[in-house]
Amino acid sequence: MERDKGAFLHSISPSKHKTELQTHHSFSSPMNQIMALVPDASSLLLLFFPFFFLVSHEIEFTSADRSTYIVHMDKSFMPKAFSSHHGWYSSMVGSSMAASAQTDDPSLLYSYDTVLHGFSAVVSPAELDVLKRSPGFISAYLDRTVTVDATHTFEFLGLHASSGLWPVSNYGDDVIIGVIDSGVWPESESYSDDGMGPIPARWRGTCQPGKAFNSSMCNSKLIGARYFNKGVKAADPKVKITMNSARDTSGHGTHTSSTAAGNYVGHTSFFGYADGTARGMAPRARIAMYKVIWDEGRYASDVLAGMDQAVADGVDVISISMGFDEVPIYNDPIAIASFGAMAKGVVVSSSAGNNGPNLGTLHNGIPWVVTVAAGTIDRSFAGTLILGNGKTIVGWTMFPASAYLNDVPLIYNETLSACNLTESLATVRYGIIVCENIGSVSEQINHITNSGISGAIFISDDDDLFESGGMTCPGVVISPKDSHHVINYAKTSSLPLASIRFQETVVGTRPAPGAALYTSRGPSPYDIGIPKPDVMAPGSLVLAAWIPNDETARIGTNLPLYSKFNIVSGTSMACPHVSGIAALLKAVHPTWTPAAIRSAMMTTADPYDNTLNPIRDNGLNFVPASPLVIGSGQIRPNQATDPGLIYDASPEDYVNLLCSMNLTTNQIMTITRSTGRYNCSIPSPDLNYPSFIAFYTNKTRTTSTRRFQRTVTNVGNGPATYNVKITAPKGSIVEVSPEKLVFGQKYEKRSYAMSINYKRDDKGRVSFGSLVWVDATGKYEVRSPIVISPVVKV
Amino acid sequence: MERDKGAFLHSISPSKHKTELQTHHSFSSPMNQIMALVPDASSLLLLFFPFFFLVSHEIEFTSADRSTYIVHMDKSFMPKAFSSHHGWYSSMVGSSMAASAQTDDPSLLYSYDTVLHGFSAVVSPAELDVLKRSPGFISAYLDRTVTVDATHTFEFLGLHASSGLWPVSNYGDDVIIGVIDSGVWPESESYSDDGMGPIPARWRGTCQPGKAFNSSMCNSKLIGARYFNKGVKAADPKVKITMNSARDTSGHGTHTSSTAAGNYVGHTSFFGYADGTARGMAPRARIAMYKVIWDEGRYASDVLAGMDQAVADGVDVISISMGFDEVPIYNDPIAIASFGAMAKGVVVSSSAGNNGPNLGTLHNGIPWVVTVAAGTIDRSFAGTLILGNGKTIVGWTMFPASAYLNDVPLIYNETLSACNLTESLATVRYGIIVCENIGSVSEQINHITNSGISGAIFISDDDDLFESGGMTCPGVVISPKDSHHVINYAKTSSLPLASIRFQETVVGTRPAPGAALYTSRGPSPYDIGIPKPDVMAPGSLVLAAWIPNDETARIGTNLPLYSKFNIVSGTSMACPHVSGIAALLKAVHPTWTPAAIRSAMMTTADPYDNTLNPIRDNGLNFVPASPLVIGSGQIRPNQATDPGLIYDASPEDYVNLLCSMNLTTNQIMTITRSTGRYNCSIPSPDLNYPSFIAFYTNKTRTTSTRRFQRTVTNVGNGPATYNVKITAPKGSIVEVSPEKLVFGQKYEKRSYAMSINYKRDDKGRVSFGSLVWVDATGKYEVRSPIVISPVVKV
Repeated sequence: MERDKGAFLHSISPSKHKTELQTHHSFSSPMNQIMALVPDASSLLLLFFPFFFLVSHEIEFTSADRSTYIVHMDKSFMPKAFSSHHGWYSSMVGSSMAASAQTDDPSLLYSYDTVLHGFSAVVSPAELDVLKRSPGFISAYLDRTVTVDATHTFEFLGLHASSGLWPVSNYGDDVIIGVIDSGVWPESESYSDDGMGPIPARWRGTCQPGKAFNSSMCNSKLIGARYFNKGVKAADPKVKITMNSARDTSGHGTHTSSTAAGNYVGHTSFFGYADGTARGMAPRARIAMYKVIWDEGRYASDVLAGMDQAVADGVDVISISMGFDEVPIYNDPIAIASFGAMAKGVVVSSSAGNNGPNLGTLHNGIPWVVTVAAGTIDRSFAGTLILGNGKTIVGWTMFPASAYLNDVPLIYNETLSACNLTESLATVRYGIIVCENIGSVSEQINHITNSGISGAIFISDDDDLFESGGMTCPGVVISPKDSHHVINYAKTSSLPLASIRFQETVVGTRPAPGAALYTSRGPSPYDIGIPKPDVMAPGSLVLAAWIPNDETARIGTNLPLYSKFNIVSGTSMACPHVSGIAALLKAVHPTWTPAAIRSAMMTTADPYDNTLNPIRDNGLNFVPASPLVIGSGQIRPNQATDPGLIYDASPEDYVNLLCSMNLTTNQIMTITRSTGRYNCSIPSPDLNYPSFIAFYTNKTRTTSTRRFQRTVTNVGNGPATYNVKITAPKGSIVEVSPEKLVFGQKYEKRSYAMSINYKRDDKGRVSFGSLVWVDATGKYEVRSPIVISPVVKV
Repeated sequence: MERDKGAFLHSISPSKHKTELQTHHSFSSPMNQIMALVPDASSLLLLFFPFFFLVSHEIEFTSADRSTYIVHMDKSFMPKAFSSHHGWYSSMVGSSMAASAQTDDPSLLYSYDTVLHGFSAVVSPAELDVLKRSPGFISAYLDRTVTVDATHTFEFLGLHASSGLWPVSNYGDDVIIGVIDSGVWPESESYSDDGMGPIPARWRGTCQPGKAFNSSMCNSKLIGARYFNKGVKAADPKVKITMNSARDTSGHGTHTSSTAAGNYVGHTSFFGYADGTARGMAPRARIAMYKVIWDEGRYASDVLAGMDQAVADGVDVISISMGFDEVPIYNDPIAIASFGAMAKGVVVSSSAGNNGPNLGTLHNGIPWVVTVAAGTIDRSFAGTLILGNGKTIVGWTMFPASAYLNDVPLIYNETLSACNLTESLATVRYGIIVCENIGSVSEQINHITNSGISGAIFISDDDDLFESGGMTCPGVVISPKDSHHVINYAKTSSLPLASIRFQETVVGTRPAPGAALYTSRGPSPYDIGIPKPDVMAPGSLVLAAWIPNDETARIGTNLPLYSKFNIVSGTSMACPHVSGIAALLKAVHPTWTPAAIRSAMMTTADPYDNTLNPIRDNGLNFVPASPLVIGSGQIRPNQATDPGLIYDASPEDYVNLLCSMNLTTNQIMTITRSTGRYNCSIPSPDLNYPSFIAFYTNKTRTTSTRRFQRTVTNVGNGPATYNVKITAPKGSIVEVSPEKLVFGQKYEKRSYAMSINYKRDDKGRVSFGSLVWVDATGKYEVRSPIVISPVVKV
């Protein structure tokens, strides 16, 4: 498990702090007109998930007077004199410099031309003013930093070699997944191209050489690797990029990309835990890495450049385990770039964020992406405690060694049992001590580790602890219920003995999945009239490839350990599960739109756990998790292959949604790029989405009604009849018309209306139900969650 | 690595010591006539190799007045009234009891009927006298205890999947190897039957149920498992057998059997060292385990029972990594049982013992078995030391963790540099300390381990240390030559830093192989006129399967570690390499006699190392190793497949050899079983062996001549002409007649005479040369070593 990670990060240099202060100072400059788009300064702070980077709230702006801006342009304005958009943008930036009569070269960082039109450049406020007056200018905003959010999971999701999506999709062969992340460790066995056929001819990407990375490091599995850090360099011209290449220095990108499409690696484990054959969700899909996350910073301009290039290179799926918190949709680089990707048929799968369990904490609540929540899996990492009287207790541990304490004296001593006195504990030396359920187990582990005593038994049923690992001493955690056996035996036996075995992995634990405590909750701050997240996938304690030079565990006080595979948690780990499955679905249904693929995943998702009860919310007293936590439920890849009906949506449908929102034309065009292609002739707040949300505030009437219109396409083979089955949210009345949909043939469409009459809840609670179209033959159930939510202002 | 093993053995109980004293007292009883056959009491002490069992010299006899005897019978004397040998033996034992008028039941332990005729029984001296007067009695002797002696090795031996012996033999498919050892851990992946076809129909063995072992634990890889401990129980009727089944409690049998024929196991290692895919020499051969080695004792009667049953069950090869020291050939259970095995066409491969480096220390110097010496391999286990100035030094370590000490302060402090003061070292805590080349590195490791300091650099070029492992602290051993860089840097840098990486495996080290220090040396104490050992195979630091509940490594002072694979050293590890290769050769040449298979291995063995110099003797200042150390040289399986010529020998040839020795008829019949089958009509000291030895004593004349007669069979395809090439031992004159052998067709035989005129060496030194028959086409070189040896009295 990851811990003490902060100590291994590049510390922020004093000069950089100084730069930040300078930029803070510049808030009173003309930039504040851009800043006004963002609720507060902390919104720029896009935190990596704490498992990865214990970076405290930090704001990265560019130095001095100049800043990096991302400028959106309407390419239809490009003068014919320019043979390329790049020349046009260069000329514009050059002109702005001349106009402002500054001597420093303003620099064009990137030209964007695939998922957006525009560029990023380091310009002064005066130069920006010039740019704004240029023909075709749509919008400009300050570059910003991104918040980044680990294999039994394939089994847990029901993937099998003999039947279902894996064989049908040929394991994702010839589908290309572009991963926007921190780079890749190309030597990892997960990127071996054993068994991979030739690279698809349509591939236009490259293997960009750089530090400790040459172009021969790609192969027919890892088919491309590029890196983008002009934004980082612009933010701090003095910055020294320590690993100026697509090589991963954090482990994050190696983990996510191997989760999505890693090849088979036999006999892997994390120090003996989670042992088995690792593989990605789409073991035969191709991986292209776009490194945009740097130890030295993470900037929107670089993220945009990575996504733009990925689509230009010909990826089929983009996996992006990061997000921008609290930015409006028209300034969210991922929303912008993913629109362009979606318009080209690329599925974008993104992580919901790790800011749970409060409502409204989600990022990537973007209508045209898949927003993925994180769940637990049916696996735990165990140690077995065997008392001298034969009693056996399975406890939790991730102590990273094949240790076996065999018939060691068991010590229960009231003066030591709080396990908070290192010196006294050290005098025991040979023994397994029982630590009472007093104070923090983490602190007890530290005391035991420092004492050097043989082993310890900790008592807790704190689930958080079970998520975090960090067992640096030979110890197990047992439940308070089991602890009585141990204490009674220790007190009554004349020579109490205990044995502890480590490195045990228990599969099939119940209930599972649960919604992870940390997974960010909807509703989307974008107020887009659809619920988010969309689906849940395994995110907790996921095993995947890692960089081999990063401390992933520790024995005792000064023995750091390293591993080629790591077990980590976060929505970052959930997202690539969905990316891989999207790749498999793309292989089966190459003509389906991104909306259709998402619909298939959502309408077949499972809201129940392996005890057949509703999935519980580990962040809210284990009550049934709402669709704002788990979306439509846990993704079921095999069922998604053949969903019966789909809710499709075209780029125009998303434009119509944007047009119904309270946005300016330029704000819309920042996303949609040009007036030529899309217009606001049919604004509609009612996107054809496979889930439903109705809001209330404490100012709305006690009872409200919301009406929805939906169109479903029959993707089953031949005629079909579906009947509606409604489970109304508590206190609501749901009506559907018609209640039966009859399809004469495949690809026929049918529309229906749904209305919900619902009550405001004075305690601000969320209620939810579902609308299910049930195929008369019983083969398909096409399920959409319905959620009644308070409006959440974050 | 194995260490501190003594602490894990069952300690000898006081009552057992008392029993031993009683039996010592009985030396003045009639038993001394049997004892006279054995040079001294310590001869019964057959030590396990110290890597396995740090049992000190101990003598195990049976309790009180009765003892277990092994009785050899001439079955042709069996009265017709008896339908089975077992009934006859039972009757005899019963009669002896009646005759001696004792009330205790004398018990028949085993009847033997395959490789020997006779039985073992617990009888009193008076009863023994009665037995001796029974018709058909050949001989009887006291049961005795046995001395027991670990996969890149297949590569080192040149085995390849694409060509050579592996594909030609179909990897040993359908050949059955019976392993006489300490049992097996059936759950080890090495016994998986993935890829194995159905069990050969001729197999008559079973999977004997017992404690923690049921008959379903065998499969089409581990096709049989039986256990034999009546001898142990007879020796101490109060003994409690802790694991009364074929389950291995020591690891030895699991290691040897998996070395011979373990299935492929991917991604194995010993705590990160020697990582790769493990496999036996004959990965498709079958394994049948005969457990005769017990924590509670190891007796000849049980060994005989195991070998007898193995041959009865239908094994093709017997692998026996143990031996009886200093017993005459006619009382050596392995010599006796292996004669019967050989007569039935079973190849017996045995270990030379671990009592080197002195001459005459070998056991299993039996003319009809393969006697295997142990060599080193071209692999070492390394750690890399990187100094803060960039200097990189590869050192030796087997510290069992994926640790990486990164830029830790390097400490060279003259008051601490002897690394013999735990308390002072403990005050340092965070740092890598340089330990000067003063005193024992093992003791320095203990001090460093107890101190808890981050890491250490030890200085030594002691090769023994490199064989033994036991690195319990994060340390590397570097050579004195490399140490100057470290000390100079530590002394001159203002802030010296060092990093150490562990778990590195270096392959292709030179020179390799070398003859292991410990491998027992010939000549055979049996004075049989042939050199022993026969061949050398990898024995040092061999990785193979192990029992998972045995401490194989340790971190710090109180963290014991366990592993499913272990790296161990000994001739016990060399023997199963040859057993597996013999199985492969048996698959290719099913009609070849055991002598022919051995001849093929011997005449193609390589006396040179990977620097193309003669293999060196690690036990004798690295001088070229004599044939009394390495036999004909390192086994070369691919070349052995097609040896050109073979030196064959039939059971009669071995009888003729025995008849030329100074043995009584009963002594000979103890081995050969009946007068009916063999007689001494043609005694001959000149066995048709593919190697030559001539002896001198300090009483012989200065110059002697010894003449040899040999017959070779052409096993090449078609006509062939061979010319002799002689390298005479220093000071000797070798003559061969004829000097050219012309074969008209395959299977033709040609004879030649060789004489050697040699000098006595007053310093008792061994000299050696070779006789090579070189095929005129250059395809074959059929090499036999010639050795001039002093007679060694042990």
